[in-house]
Parts: sequence; C-alpha cells; structure tokens
Amino acid sequence: MNVEQIFQSLQKGKISPSRAEKLLSLYSIEKIGNIAQIDTGRKNRKGIPEIIFAERKQLLDLKKIIKKTLSKNNEVLVSRIKQKDYTKVLEFAKNKYKIKKGKNTTAVLVYKKNIKKTGGKVGIIAAGTSDIGVAEEAKLVCESMNCDCISSYDVGIAGLHRIFPVLKQFIEAEVDVIIVVAGMEGALASIVSSIADVPVIGVPTSIGYGYGEKGVAALASMLQSCSLGLTVVNIDNGVGAGAAAANIANRIKTKC
Amino acid sequence: MNVEQIFQSLQKGKISPSRAEKLLSLYSIEKIGNIAQIDTGRKNRKGIPEIIFAERKQLLDLKKIIKKTLSKNNEVLVSRIKQKDYTKVLEFAKNKYKIKKGKNTTAVLVYKKNIKKTGGKVGIIAAGTSDIGVAEEAKLVCESMNCDCISSYDVGIAGLHRIFPVLKQFIEAEVDVIIVVAGMEGALASIVSSIADVPVIGVPTSIGYGYGEKGVAALASMLQSCSLGLTVVNIDNGVGAGAAAANIANRIKTKC
Amino acid sequence: MNVEQIFQSLQKGKISPSRAEKLLSLYSIEKIGNIAQIDTGRKNRKGIPEIIFAERKQLLDLKKIIKKTLSKNNEVLVSRIKQKDYTKVLEFAKNKYKIKKGKNTTAVLVYKKNIKKTGGKVGIIAAGTSDIGVAEEAKLVCESMNCDCISSYDVGIAGLHRIFPVLKQFIEAEVDVIIVVAGMEGALASIVSSIADVPVIGVPTSIGYGYGEKGVAALASMLQSCSLGLTVVNIDNGVGAGAAAANIANRIKTKC
Amino acid sequence: MNVEQIFQSLQKGKISPSRAEKLLSLYSIEKIGNIAQIDTGRKNRKGIPEIIFAERKQLLDLKKIIKKTLSKNNEVLVSRIKQKDYTKVLEFAKNKYKIKKGKNTTAVLVYKKNIKKTGGKVGIIAAGTSDIGVAEEAKLVCESMNCDCISSYDVGIAGLHRIFPVLKQFIEAEVDVIIVVAGMEGALASIVSSIADVPVIGVPTSIGYGYGEKGVAALASMLQSCSLGLTVVNIDNGVGAGAAAANIANRIKTKC
Amino acid sequence: MNVEQIFQSLQKGKISPSRAEKLLSLYSIEKIGNIAQIDTGRKNRKGIPEIIFAERKQLLDLKKIIKKTLSKNNEVLVSRIKQKDYTKVLEFAKNKYKIKKGKNTTAVLVYKKNIKKTGGKVGIIAAGTSDIGVAEEAKLVCESMNCDCISSYDVGIAGLHRIFPVLKQFIEAEVDVIIVVAGMEGALASIVSSIADVPVIGVPTSIGYGYGEKGVAALASMLQSCSLGLTVVNIDNGVGAGAAAANIANRIKTKC
Amino acid sequence: MNVEQIFQSLQKGKISPSRAEKLLSLYSIEKIGNIAQIDTGRKNRKGIPEIIFAERKQLLDLKKIIKKTLSKNNEVLVSRIKQKDYTKVLEFAKNKYKIKKGKNTTAVLVYKKNIKKTGGKVGIIAAGTSDIGVAEEAKLVCESMNCDCISSYDVGIAGLHRIFPVLKQFIEAEVDVIIVVAGMEGALASIVSSIADVPVIGVPTSIGYGYGEKGVAALASMLQSCSLGLTVVNIDNGVGAGAAAANIANRIKTKC
Amino acid sequence: MNVEQIFQSLQKGKISPSRAEKLLSLYSIEKIGNIAQIDTGRKNRKGIPEIIFAERKQLLDLKKIIKKTLSKNNEVLVSRIKQKDYTKVLEFAKNKYKIKKGKNTTAVLVYKKNIKKTGGKVGIIAAGTSDIGVAEEAKLVCESMNCDCISSYDVGIAGLHRIFPVLKQFIEAEVDVIIVVAGMEGALASIVSSIADVPVIGVPTSIGYGYGEKGVAALASMLQSCSLGLTVVNIDNGVGAGAAAANIANRIKTKC
Amino acid sequence: MNVEQIFQSLQKGKISPSRAEKLLSLYSIEKIGNIAQIDTGRKNRKGIPEIIFAERKQLLDLKKIIKKTLSKNNEVLVSRIKQKDYTKVLEFAKNKYKIKKGKNTTAVLVYKKNIKKTGGKVGIIAAGTSDIGVAEEAKLVCESMNCDCISSYDVGIAGLHRIFPVLKQFIEAEVDVIIVVAGMEGALASIVSSIADVPVIGVPTSIGYGYGEKGVAALASMLQSCSLGLTVVNIDNGVGAGAAAANIANRIKTKC
Repeated sequence: MNVEQIFQSLQKGKISPSRAEKLLSLYSIEKIGNIAQIDTGRKNRKGIPEIIFAERKQLLDLKKIIKKTLSKNNEVLVSRIKQKDYTKVLEFAKNKYKIKKGKNTTAVLVYKKNIKKTGGKVGIIAAGTSDIGVAEEAKLVCESMNCDCISSYDVGIAGLHRIFPVLKQFIEAEVDVIIVVAGMEGALASIVSSIADVPVIGVPTSIGYGYGEKGVAALASMLQSCSLGLTVVNIDNGVGAGAAAANIANRIKTKC
Repeated sequence: MNVEQIFQSLQKGKISPSRAEKLLSLYSIEKIGNIAQIDTGRKNRKGIPEIIFAERKQLLDLKKIIKKTLSKNNEVLVSRIKQKDYTKVLEFAKNKYKIKKGKNTTAVLVYKKNIKKTGGKVGIIAAGTSDIGVAEEAKLVCESMNCDCISSYDVGIAGLHRIFPVLKQFIEAEVDVIIVVAGMEGALASIVSSIADVPVIGVPTSIGYGYGEKGVAALASMLQSCSLGLTVVNIDNGVGAGAAAANIANRIKTKC
Repeated sequence: MNVEQIFQSLQKGKISPSRAEKLLSLYSIEKIGNIAQIDTGRKNRKGIPEIIFAERKQLLDLKKIIKKTLSKNNEVLVSRIKQKDYTKVLEFAKNKYKIKKGKNTTAVLVYKKNIKKTGGKVGIIAAGTSDIGVAEEAKLVCESMNCDCISSYDVGIAGLHRIFPVLKQFIEAEVDVIIVVAGMEGALASIVSSIADVPVIGVPTSIGYGYGEKGVAALASMLQSCSLGLTVVNIDNGVGAGAAAANIANRIKTKC
Repeated sequence: MNVEQIFQSLQKGKISPSRAEKLLSLYSIEKIGNIAQIDTGRKNRKGIPEIIFAERKQLLDLKKIIKKTLSKNNEVLVSRIKQKDYTKVLEFAKNKYKIKKGKNTTAVLVYKKNIKKTGGKVGIIAAGTSDIGVAEEAKLVCESMNCDCISSYDVGIAGLHRIFPVLKQFIEAEVDVIIVVAGMEGALASIVSSIADVPVIGVPTSIGYGYGEKGVAALASMLQSCSLGLTVVNIDNGVGAGAAAANIANRIKTKC
Repeated sequence: MNVEQIFQSLQKGKISPSRAEKLLSLYSIEKIGNIAQIDTGRKNRKGIPEIIFAERKQLLDLKKIIKKTLSKNNEVLVSRIKQKDYTKVLEFAKNKYKIKKGKNTTAVLVYKKNIKKTGGKVGIIAAGTSDIGVAEEAKLVCESMNCDCISSYDVGIAGLHRIFPVLKQFIEAEVDVIIVVAGMEGALASIVSSIADVPVIGVPTSIGYGYGEKGVAALASMLQSCSLGLTVVNIDNGVGAGAAAANIANRIKTKC
Repeated sequence: MNVEQIFQSLQKGKISPSRAEKLLSLYSIEKIGNIAQIDTGRKNRKGIPEIIFAERKQLLDLKKIIKKTLSKNNEVLVSRIKQKDYTKVLEFAKNKYKIKKGKNTTAVLVYKKNIKKTGGKVGIIAAGTSDIGVAEEAKLVCESMNCDCISSYDVGIAGLHRIFPVLKQFIEAEVDVIIVVAGMEGALASIVSSIADVPVIGVPTSIGYGYGEKGVAALASMLQSCSLGLTVVNIDNGVGAGAAAANIANRIKTKC
Repeated sequence: MNVEQIFQSLQKGKISPSRAEKLLSLYSIEKIGNIAQIDTGRKNRKGIPEIIFAERKQLLDLKKIIKKTLSKNNEVLVSRIKQKDYTKVLEFAKNKYKIKKGKNTTAVLVYKKNIKKTGGKVGIIAAGTSDIGVAEEAKLVCESMNCDCISSYDVGIAGLHRIFPVLKQFIEAEVDVIIVVAGMEGALASIVSSIADVPVIGVPTSIGYGYGEKGVAALASMLQSCSLGLTVVNIDNGVGAGAAAANIANRIKTKC
Repeated sequence: MNVEQIFQSLQKGKISPSRAEKLLSLYSIEKIGNIAQIDTGRKNRKGIPEIIFAERKQLLDLKKIIKKTLSKNNEVLVSRIKQKDYTKVLEFAKNKYKIKKGKNTTAVLVYKKNIKKTGGKVGIIAAGTSDIGVAEEAKLVCESMNCDCISSYDVGIAGLHRIFPVLKQFIEAEVDVIIVVAGMEGALASIVSSIADVPVIGVPTSIGYGYGEKGVAALASMLQSCSLGLTVVNIDNGVGAGAAAANIANRIKTKC
C-alpha cells in the first residue's frame, strides 16, 4: 500500500490509526530500502578499494577478511596492521596474492591481477622522515586507484631550497595533483600551494610536541593558509588524502 | 661574486672575514631575489583573481584599490565589505564596470569584459539559509575563475530526502566538483561525499551554538568523516573552497 | 533502465562507457529520489511543529514565512525573534491567529485552532532566573506538541531544599518526563535525576562566567553525572529538550 | 529540640550561644538524615541494577563484591573488567550464578533467577565494529532492567543504505526507543533521529583520530544535530544510555 | 503512611501497585521536604548576606528586590549593576538606606544599621589597576560579613619590590587571611602565598590578551602553584573570594 | 658601595660606565640576597613539612633524601612513590623511623617523634572509592601539620542521603574546615558547601571519562559553584588541599 | 632584632611566643623590603620606557599620567588609546612635547628631548596590512629604547618572493635582530628564521578566522617551527617584541 | 628560454599554449632551484650544528647517521635517544669520537676536535629537578655553538630567595643571555626577567598535573608575563632555546 491507499483505508475504517501509523512507517522505510543496491555501483565508479583498518583486529580474523574481500575484488588495502602481526600478514598475503608495501608504515596493498593504470599522476611530498609513513599510505591508496605516484620525502621548510627541484620534477612529470604531508608547523603545504598551480591537498601529521602537538599546529596552519586553493584532510589521514587525490587525477584523465 | 670567489678572496686576504660573511649573505639573498618575477606568471596560470578583504579598509581606500587593480586586471573580487559601505561600493562599481553580487553576503565581483568560460562546472550545496552567504562567496570566486556554477541552498540533513534530487541535477549537468557548505553538525558534506563520485570540498560554517559552536562541530565532523575523499577548507572560507574547486574543474576541462 | 539493462546495453555496444556511467549515476539518484515524499509523513507522526529561527530574518520575510507556514499547518513556533521586532511580530500574529508567549524569551507559538492534548505531561525546572527563557522555549515546544507542562523556576542548588516540594508536586501530577534547565555548575540535573524515577533531560545554559563559562561547565557536569539515566541536549537548546520530552510523553500516552 | 525550642533556651539563658549554634546545626542535619531510607526504595522503582566498575578493583575484591551484592539482589552488572581477569571472573560467576556476556567488551551481567520482562523494547545501532563494545554494555543494562533488545551493528554512514532495512526491522518490532552508538563524525545519530519517530539516544564513542579524536567530534556533532529530539549521553557511556533507554521503554509499557 | 505501612496495604490488597508506587514516591519527597526550614538558619550562621546579581535585571525590578530584601535583612549586596542604572540605584539607595561603594565596580552594599564587627581582618591585594573592581567586590562582601579589610592595589609582579611593604603592613595589622586578585600571568598569588603564613585565596581576573586571555593563564598559574596552601576561586569571582575569606576570618575570631 | 656611591665614583671618573653598571647590578642582587635566611623561618611558622615527590626519583636517591631530610626535621612526607618501590620504601622507613600510610595511595609520612597536636580538626569527604587516594594524601599532610582528621569515603551524589549523617558527625566533632574530594561531575563540593557553615575546600579528581575527563568537569563545576565560599585547588592536588586546610585549622586553634 | 635575637628573647621568656612569631614575620618582610630601591635602577639599565596601557583609562586621567611621567622621565609610550580619545591625546601631547605616531595603531611615543641612539638596529617585517599596527607598536618601543628601525610591511607568504629583497636590505643595513609580525598561519616567521642568521622574534597576531583564529594558529605554528632559534612573544604583543629586540640590539652595540 | 622568449614563441605560433605553460612553470622553478647552494652557507654562518632527533630511529641507522654526519662536520648533537639504546650509543661514540653528556637526558654531543669558544656566555636556570633534562639539552646546544654555560638548577619560586644569589653569580660572570627552564606555573621566567637586564628566554616544561598540565600553564604564564622583554620557545624545547641563546651571545661577542 502506498501513502494514499493507507490514508483511504484509514478513512474507511478498514484499519485502525495505530495500524495505519505502522504501515506508514514501514512504507517509508521500504521505499528507502530500495537504495541498498546502489552501493556496489558507487564503489565501482568512485574506484576506492576496500580498506581494512587492522588496528583492532585479530590476526586470524584479518586473514579471513582479506581472503573474503579478495574473493570478490581484485585488491584490498590493509592499513594500521599491528607491528607484531605485520610480517605474518605479509607472508600470508605473498603466498596467495601479489603485494605492495610502504616505508615506515604497516599498510600493505594486496591484489590479484596487476592494477591497470588510468594515467592519473599524483605527486607526494613529505616534510620529515617521520611523516613518510603517512605519505606512503596515501601512495598505496593512489596506486590501488590506478594512479602513478612520484614521491619526494624529507623536504622540510628548514631547508626551503630543497622544495624547488622537487616541484620542478613534479611539473615536468605533469602530475595532476600534489599531496603535502607535514607535521610540526605544517608550513610546507602553504608554500607548495603558493608555488604550484595544480590542486594541493595538505595532510597535517601528529609529529610535533608541546603547544600545538599531535598535529594541531599543522592543521591550524594549513586551514589558516593565506595560499588560496589548498584543501585539507584530518591529521595523519594519508588514506583520505590518497583517495581524494586519485579521484581528482582520474577525473582529469578519464574525462579527456 | 659567487660563493667560490668570495672564499678565494678571503683566503688570499683580499677581504676580511666579516666582509666575506656579509658578501655571502648578500649573494644568497640576491640569488633568491631573482624569483620575484615569477609571481605574475603564477597568477596567470592558476587563474585566481585579485581578492580584496575589505573588512578593515576605509571606503575611499577601497575605491582606489579597486580602480588600481582593474587598471591591470580584468576582474577583482571584493569580499567582506562593511555593511554600511556595501551599497556605496556597488554604486561606485556599477558606474564604471560590470558587477556580479551574491545573496546574503557583501562580496561583489567587479569586472570589465565578460569573463570567458573554460567549461568547468562546480556544484554548490548549502545546508541552511544562513550558510548561503558563504556559498555565494565560493560561487563568485568560481565564476571569476571562468567556471559555471549550479547551486542549491537550504538542503539540510534534517530533511535528508531533499539532497537526492539536487545531486541528480548536478550529475545530469556533469559538474566536475561539488562544494558543500554546512554549519551545525556539518553532516551534509559526509553524506554528499558518500553518494557522489566527483571530488567534494566541505566548508564548515560558523552557524551553530553551544558546544561545538562557531563551526568547530562542523569542522571536526567533516575532518572525521568516514566518507573517504572529502577534503576541507577552514570555517567560513567560501573563497578558499571556490578557488580550490575552480582549480580542479579547470584542470579537467583544459587538460582535455 | 535499471542497472542490469545499462550493463547489457554497454556490452552490446549500444551505449558508450561514459554514457553508461552517467546513466548509472542517474539511476541511483532517481531511486533515492523517491524518498522525497516521506518527509511530510514523518512530520505528522513525530508531531514536531514547524520551527522558525528568526534570529537572522528580516521582519517582512518573517511575517511571510509565518503566514505561509500557517496556511498549511495549525501551528508554528517562532524562536529567537530580534528584540526590536518582537512586539511587531506579536501584534501581527495576534491579529490573525492565536498566540502563546514565554517569559524572558522572544519565542512565540502562533496557532489557528486550539491545540489538542494527548495527556502527555512534562515537568520543567529551571535553576536560576536567567535560565527561565530557555525553559520557556522548551515549554512552548511541548505545548505545541500537545503536552501539558508544569514548570517551577528559581530552584537552585544553593538552596537545595527548594527542589523537594517541586519534585513532590511533579510526582503528584504524574509527569512523564522532567526537563532540568541549569547554568553555572549544572548540578541540579544530577540531583533531580538521582531523586526522580521518570526520565530526566538536562539542558545546560550559557549562564556563568570565568572557567567553564558559556555553559561548558554545566554541559560537562551533566555528561559526567554519576546519576545514571540522565540524557542531555546542547547548551541553551530548550527547543530540542522540549521536542525530546514531548516525544517521550506522547509515546507513553498514545501507546496506552 | 526543634528550632523554636533552641531559640527559647537561648533567650532564657539556659544554653550558651555557641551551644545553641551547634544544636541548630545538628538539628538541621538530623532532619535531613531521615531521608537515608529512601534510597533503597528509589532503586527498586527506577529499576537500575547495581553496577560495579571493575577497572580499578583487584580480582579478589571483585569476587567478594559480586557475592555480597548478589546476596541482596537478583542481578549485578560488572563492567570494565581488566582483560587479564575477565575469564577468571566469568568462571567464578558461571559456577554460582547465571551470566550474560557482551561482544567486544569485558562487561558481564551476573544474575540468579531469570530476569522478568516488562515488554519494553530497545533498538540498538552501532556505526562501526569498534563501537560494538559500547553498544553491548548498553544492551546488558537494558536486559538487566527487564527490557528486550534488538541490535544491529556495523551500520555506518559511509554505507548510508544499510541503515534503512535496520530501521524497518526496528519499527516492525515496535521498539520504544533507539540507542545509536557512533564514533568518528557521529552523523548516524542525526540521521536515525531524522528518520525514526521514537525517542533516540546518541552515544558518541572515542573511536576516531586526529582533530576531534576521543569522541569529541561525535559528541559535538550529536549536540549540534539539526534533528530535533535527539538526546545524548557522554562519550563511551553505554551504561548511561542503556539506563535511560530502559527507563523510557519501561515507562511506556508499565503505564499502559 | 510510612514505607512499611505502604507495603502492608499493598500486600493486603488495599491499594493497587501503581497507587503504592505513587505513595512511595510522595512519602520519600515529603520526608525530604522537611528540610525546607533549614535554609534561613544556615544563612544566619554562615553570615553571607543576600547578593543580587543585577546584570540582567530591570531598574524597577531591582529597586523592588532591594526594598523587599531589606525589609527582612539588615544588608544586601547589589553587584554587576548596569552602568546606565548605577547612579540611579545609588540615589534610590542613599535616600532610604546607608550605602558603601567600591572603586571601579558597580557593586554597592546597601544596609540599614551599621554592620557590627567580629574583629575578623582580611587583607586584599590587587596586581593591576584593572583588577581593582574585582578586589572591591571582595571587600564589600567581607565588610557585609562583619570583617575589616586592608587593601593595597597596583602591586604587580613586574615591580616585585612593591609587594614586601604591603605584606609587612598586613602582618602588623594581623590579618587572618589574604585575598590576591591578579590577571595576566597571575604569579602574584604564588609569590604572596610563598611569603605569607596566613591562608591565601587567589582570584584570577580576566585581564590579559592573546594566549591565556580571559583569565585562563592566571587561573592555570594559580592552580599549578608550587606554593602549597593557596586555594583559588573562579575568574573574576571577587564575591566568592570575599565570602570564603570572611568565613575563615570570622571563624578564627568567633572561636576564641 | 651603595647606589649613591656608585654614581659618585662614576661622575668623578673613578670607575668606567660599564664597571658602574656591573656594580649596580651586583649591589641590587646582594641586597636581595639577604633574604635567603627567611625560608627556614617561614617553613617553621607555616608548618608545612618537607614533601618529596618520589615519582621520578630512583629508590637509592629516595632513601638518601629521606635520611637527609630527617636528620634536620622531625617528619617528611613522601608522595607518589613508584608502585614497584613502595614496599621497599616502607621497609626502609619502618626500620629507622615511625611511619603512617594512606589507603589507595603510595604516599607515606615518615617521622621520628610523635607529632604534637594543635587541636586543629579537618573533616575529609571523598565521593567515590577511586578518590580515596587523593583524600588520604590530604589527610597525611594535615596530620603532619599537627591536625586531627575525620574522614568519610564513598559519599557520592548518586546517593545524596549518605552525605547528611557524615556532615552531622563532622559538626558534632567540631571540625574547623572540610575537604571535599570528588571526580566525575564534582557536585559534592557544591552540596557540602551549601549545607556546612565551616570553610570548604574542593579537590577535583581525575576520575571520569569522555567529555570533561581528567578532572576538567569536576574543576569547572567547583569553580562555577553557586555556593559562595567554596575555594578550590588543582585536580588531584590532595597535598595542596591538606596544607591549606591545616593552615586554616591551626590558625583557628592557635589564635585562641 | 634579627632572627637569633628573637629566638633568645623567646627562650629567656622576655617575649611571648605569639609576639615572637609576629616579630619573626616582620623581620623577614623588613629584610625583603630593602629591595624596594632596586626598581628605578633596573629601569635605567634595561632601558624600557614607562608604558601606559590607555585602553581602560579616562582621557583626563590619561593626560595627568602622561604629564606626571614626563616630569620624571624623558619619554613615555602610550598604547591602546581609545579611538575616540586618540586625536585629543595627540593634540595635548603635541602642544607640550614631541611625539612620534605609528600607522594603524593608536599608540604614540611622547618625549621631551630627542632620544639618543645607541646604534642598535632592528628590522621589522609584517605579513599583512592588518598586522601593521602591531609592528608599529614594536617600532615605537624600539625607538624609545634608542634603536633605529627598518620596517617592511605587506610581505606575505602567499607572495613568497617578496621576502627576499627585504631580507637583503636588512642584511645590508646590518640589523642586529629581526621582528616578524604575522597572523593567519604565521609561517613567515619560520621562513625568515630559516634564511636570516640574526636572532628572530616572532609576534603572532590575532588576524585570522575559523579554526586557529585569534592568533592561535600563528602562535602554534611559530612555537612548532622547525627553524631553530626563533623565539616568540604573545599574540599581538608588539610592545613585548620591541622591548626584547631593542634589549638584544643594545647589548650588541653597548658591549663593543 | 626566459619569460619573454616563451611569450614570443607562443605569439609566433612556434609553441602550443600548453607547451608554453609547461615551459613557464619549469622556468620559474629553475630560477628558484638556484638557491639550493645557499643552505650549507647558512649553516656555517648561523653556527647551529646538525641535530638528530633519535626518538624514532633504529640503533643501527642512528650509528650510520652519526658517522656520516661527522665525516663532514666536526660535531653532531643526538637528542631524545631511546632509553634502551642510550648506553650503546655512548659506547659507540666514545670509541671513535669525543662526547659530552647531559644530566637527566639522553642527549649527547659527539665531536671530533675540541669546539672553539667565541666567548659567548649563557646562564641557564631550571626551576625543579625534573626540568634539568630540558636545561641540559639547551646547554649542549650552546656548547656545540661555541658558547660557555653557567647553570643553576632547583631554583624554584616556592623558595624565592634562592634565585638572587644565582642571578648575582650570573651577572658577575657577565652572561650575555639567560635561559629559564620552568614547569608548573612557570613564574620563574617572569621573575628573572623582571630582575635581570640581559635578554631572557623562557622554556616552559611539561612538568605539572591537573589543569594546565603538560606545560600549558607555564607557557600561558610566560606569554602573559607582565615583565617586558621575555621571549619564549615551545614546551620542552631546550634545543630551540639553546640555539636562540647562543645565537644572541655569539652575535654580541663576534660583533665587538
């Protein structure tokens, strides 16, 4: 019964008001229920792979989830694997699938067939050695989303001059978007955004201490940036930055 | 003298150490000084217009700056004009140039020749009537950067169903990127990002009260979003969101 | 075309991949679009009236919105009317409709026919004279949602003994739920919740100064309450507390 | 001696002023002391069971307290048991009493006779796998308070469509109240409250990272919710949400 | 009926369970209701006068409240009078009663008969000219509570040497307790407490700017004080400091 | 040379300006240097014992410091001893001196001769079992400062009625001052202060979770207290509360 | 009597214990009282002029204080003059003395004889037009402390290239220290400190909006700076930065 | 090709617009790329040694980096070495190079030839034993930058008198600048700055608990200091304070 029919039945006394109310609720929900089948579609189009946050998962469960996910998908990104489980997960994955690791991070991209390239290109800069792990998570996401990455780490503001050759290399390679990963005062994102003309995504990291620690200074600094056009993701959110960057890069390539 | 020459002179005793030190400093700065001519170039390429924050400027000064900027550029965006000066600025600008106004905001785009279109398309959604001003600033920036905008305001999460027809319209129009402007709990950005497959930029606004007021709840909510791929600008930063969105949209169009 | 048909057309080469992608997006949105008609239904069932936040609205616009809303509904709550417009709104409303005002607040309930009673009963306590305005907003919402209210103001923790006769009166009247409005240290909500056995909703208010000002101390105190069963709304959110309380009270009465 | 008698004795010089003062203090306190016997009564009526926070308790002490509490009561909820003591507590309890455990949490409900049902029904939704522990604490409290629970976990906003079938099931089952447990941006509570017409209680959880971590974003988001009628408990306070929900559900059932 | 009688009536079937429940609730509350008469007694003993926070009160109402309060009491402290009403309140009060004003504050002590002295002595130090208003509020409260005050203002840490003669004067006068009012970094309270051997109460004030503004730095500094024995009241809470200090001073004098 | 002499020597050319400047600096410092001998005196008068924060000290060093301190003083309070060193410190101390321990805390008072009593009496209330450790630190400080203590723990606001018999006992015992130790919402301090007429010192504790955790809610609540006359020390600062309370109690007793 | 004499008198029974205690207190204070004469000396040596914060001062009082200060000193800095009093203060000062004004600020340096130069040189950079007022306050302080200033305003990070010629000019002029005044993300201070080899003092300003507003982002960014050697003063504290810079510059010049 | 040439080629149709755009980008970057050689120069002039933050480095990597750095430099400061690696690093370093350790810290200065002295002198004061580690890091940096240090630890505000002899000693030794390391309420920095006439740099430390813990109170207190001329570095940033202090001291000495 649709809304009209429910109200008619009620007026004719065929159903009680409380029955009508319940039918109305159910009707509404049922209509919305139809949207359930969208999700798979969306995943295909947006191209973001399944991502497993392994931080609070048992090793056994983790293996099962990887297996199950890869039975339906070509790739899965496993991030924040517990240090003690990391080599075990790698071994498990290497036996059955192909893998791609990142530096200074326990994330791993597990896949079956080689991932096709859209031609989208993402440049990734990290300000300090401790920021590399976050940058590498972003990189793995980009690669899982069919993009190529060029990365350059240890480019800090204290050595301002080290930024320029990197940006030159990025522009020669025609990157579509740049991710800047930076802790402490996070000024690198502002500077890159003020020099580069491609979209720039800033990732503040939780590196730092004292006032503004845990990434708060870097986040505030990036949000307050005088350099128009910089957008930001949450502290340490390399995965989110990668997804946004690859989305932009793919859009540029696939729309041509 | 370059670095080598300075050191040689020093070794040969031709110059004193303190003279050498000063020469070294000057040499370094001079080299860097050469970058001064880049800026104009960057502005051309990135396409962000001159933007005047009028908040703390006197009416007379404001007029002078508009005139001077438009003698060298085709357009200028004047934002945050004092309420009491707004109509005066409009009159002044209308006499000499063409203008484009925004709703619920004192920003105005002043230009000489009609602004050419790149074909870039930006969709803009605002969650509540009070967020419209920020959305309109974003719109004016996008238009000044040669993009077309489709906007839909008063689409709040309390009426979840109102979002879907809007997104449908955006996709039919093939927008390249969507800006979501939302105060209070800011959930709209998460929801749009979880449905749409184009890049989404969230703008938290300072609408709201009590705990999380001044946009803090909306900002936190957007940064914590479970929906991967959402990037964010600072609270009320419509201008920044517009610049980032138009940059992405133009890149897609001009690269094809 | 549904998902299957789109994929078939694509495989048969009848449509291009980019056409298929667009169709897919549209299909998804269209399905979700069907939920649009739910909202009116939900409003009826939940019983929350239209609420207009008048804070940023022009007097003229406000009158129009009241008129328009009352052409389709029996009642509308106008809250946070600008001080300078308050008497004008009252006069306008009194001429055409019936009204109910609150003490120490510029909210007004405007209605056409007398609002029917469900028998739901809400008790409202405010801790200090300055909290009355928030309490009265809650009261107007409850009344617009067909409940009766008993209120008792100026019952502070500094005079602990004043609470007991009030609670006695509430229990004799068989209230279904109690709203406690309190600023400063907000302890009143904890105390009422530890004595009363009906559901208690705490509303911290922005009364207070120094550390914990703007309602932060009262909010923290209520959230940390040792007294299990207390739930909380945002600072100064009398409207939200009223809606939640009336919802509970009506549920008790209508389910019997 | 009552107040009057004290003053008379003082006036007649029978007692000294300092003696009078002390008598006055004692008299006041004595009167208030009479309220001591209320508490047991209140506990019975409100129906909240004894709850032991085991976090800082030694295993031996814990066993003693459980035994002592169950000598006077039919049930006791032990929550936040240390990981290392958990199985020992379970074994101890299973030997002597009946128990009910929760997933992903070390809480356990220990009881002697089967707990009677009032017919009150609580629906519980959790947004992510990590929020299940908090949801299960709420569930155990509800069950100890004689309610039935229906729960559905892993219903996140990133997969918006998963919410609707759950809500449909809840409405068919005629739940009296819904608890929404959500970390990260906490938007799920707003969404459920904007769709469902029963009272909704939000529990922000400390899941999340970066800006707004530790539940702060979820709390702010729920307090700022545009969806009227949502009330909130403190971060991770599953116990409090359960007590409030069961109180409402029982009220509806017992008042009929 | 007391608890026992209620249960007996219930067992004998004389009253229904729901009637019993209500009787139980009422009985509990009634018992507690008896404490109502305590309050007057407490006020007498503690000696804190009636205090009217005039900030949000209309002039007319204010006059009425003063009149009414003084019909039952000998004195009343009116604090935070609106600047525009201050002289009117003074005139009104001077006509009918005696008054005592404070510097840099709109507080006024209104009384009928001269206030008797207990001999309690309070020393009050303020760090900067802007802190005087808060200090004077403390002073008026002390005087209304029958104490004598010695005050010394403009004794800041930047001129450390100015503190010592003041403390010398206080000790010669045998003050029972010292109130230190200080904004900015609030170090003065620590220093006085480390030198003086009487109890010291710190009042942080909202003087200051930038990081730690609004009294936050002063409050934090006083709470973190290395000087044991310092206690603190809220920012700008001169009234509270005065009440605490006079309470201590009177206790010392009246107990001898 | 004093200031005058320095200036004369300078004018007569006997010393160079830079020499004069240095002499001036030295002269100033030398004068201030004379205050060095005060400290011992102050300690005697104020009566606060030596307190060793053992948290970051090695066991061996700790023993040495205790020995050295007791060679010059009759007592020393050792607080925050590392859990693993606690029994070792106790054994060491018991062998050579007398000791007094506290519950739920690793503080210990070590003394040589029995500590004399001034007759000062301090009442100590703690709200929850977890607050006992902080209360016991306060108690040891009071006892080391020659006061008697009466303490009552586990008196929470959730069981409001348990407060009254305790306060009655305190008043019968004629305590000079009351310390209230409370975490969570900290309301107990407000309540005690609104009932008792002796000075009350609140100690917020870091017990609690979620919003307002780590004692922030309790601190804010106590500072915002409507009950005039309550003063506060920092979170978990039992030592500071004890020192302040004993100072007040001793003052009352020794001044009589 | 000194400490020894007091104790002897006490032992011989010449004075009572309470008399001894008071003498002891007085003795201590008296010794410290001797330091009173230092302050004038310190002011001379440190060279910081008298500074009047005029924000809360009446015009008449202000004039009196200026007159009185200049009767004893050669110069006085009046800062934060109320906008409405500014021209009146200028006129008053110009009539009797010489003055030096600053741009975008209501500070004014009033002096009698031309201020002598030490040769100390301070470079001052401001990032945006709105930061100029703070920079000019710093400049006036430096000049009153006998230094020369070179300033360059409107040098923002968005136009990175504009920094270099300024720094070149500073180095050629051989400044002893550089003050960087910057709001928003405050990155300019880091950048200057990473290029220049003289001491750099950062002044965050309250320019900015949204997250990190009121100077919080700039302050955090400067404190977190990767560029070693940068020190910071409070938000908007131009006066403090000027005093510190001039102190350093003078030290360099006067020590040679 | 320079900018002009690129534009000419474009106008003549020799290159396409997109080629011109890329050339323009590359040209800009290339020019900036030339500044790369500056950095070594800057390091020499500013005199800050290489500093390795060892916190997140593996022992093996750490040794390699030390070796590599010392192959090009005379000294390297290794700070925040993991406790478990500390002695191993010391042994490794002692075998091959000379070392200088600090108390209460795992920092170590490793060098080849004895470090030459400029004659710059830095005074370092720490307020409590727990602050010594931070002070010692500052000291090692100063020494690596060719300065002499005089340090005095355990000079707290609770024993105000202990400061004066220390300052006297510093002035006699003619220190050029003073570093004050202080946790808790951090008042020591204010006091030293108000007495001493040399530049003072405050280092707040993370010592402290409760409200204002983690150095927040000390930082706020130092930033709010009434004592003009005090500058501040971030919490626990001994390295930064050392670098700034040595820079000032060296400037004074080398400019003479």
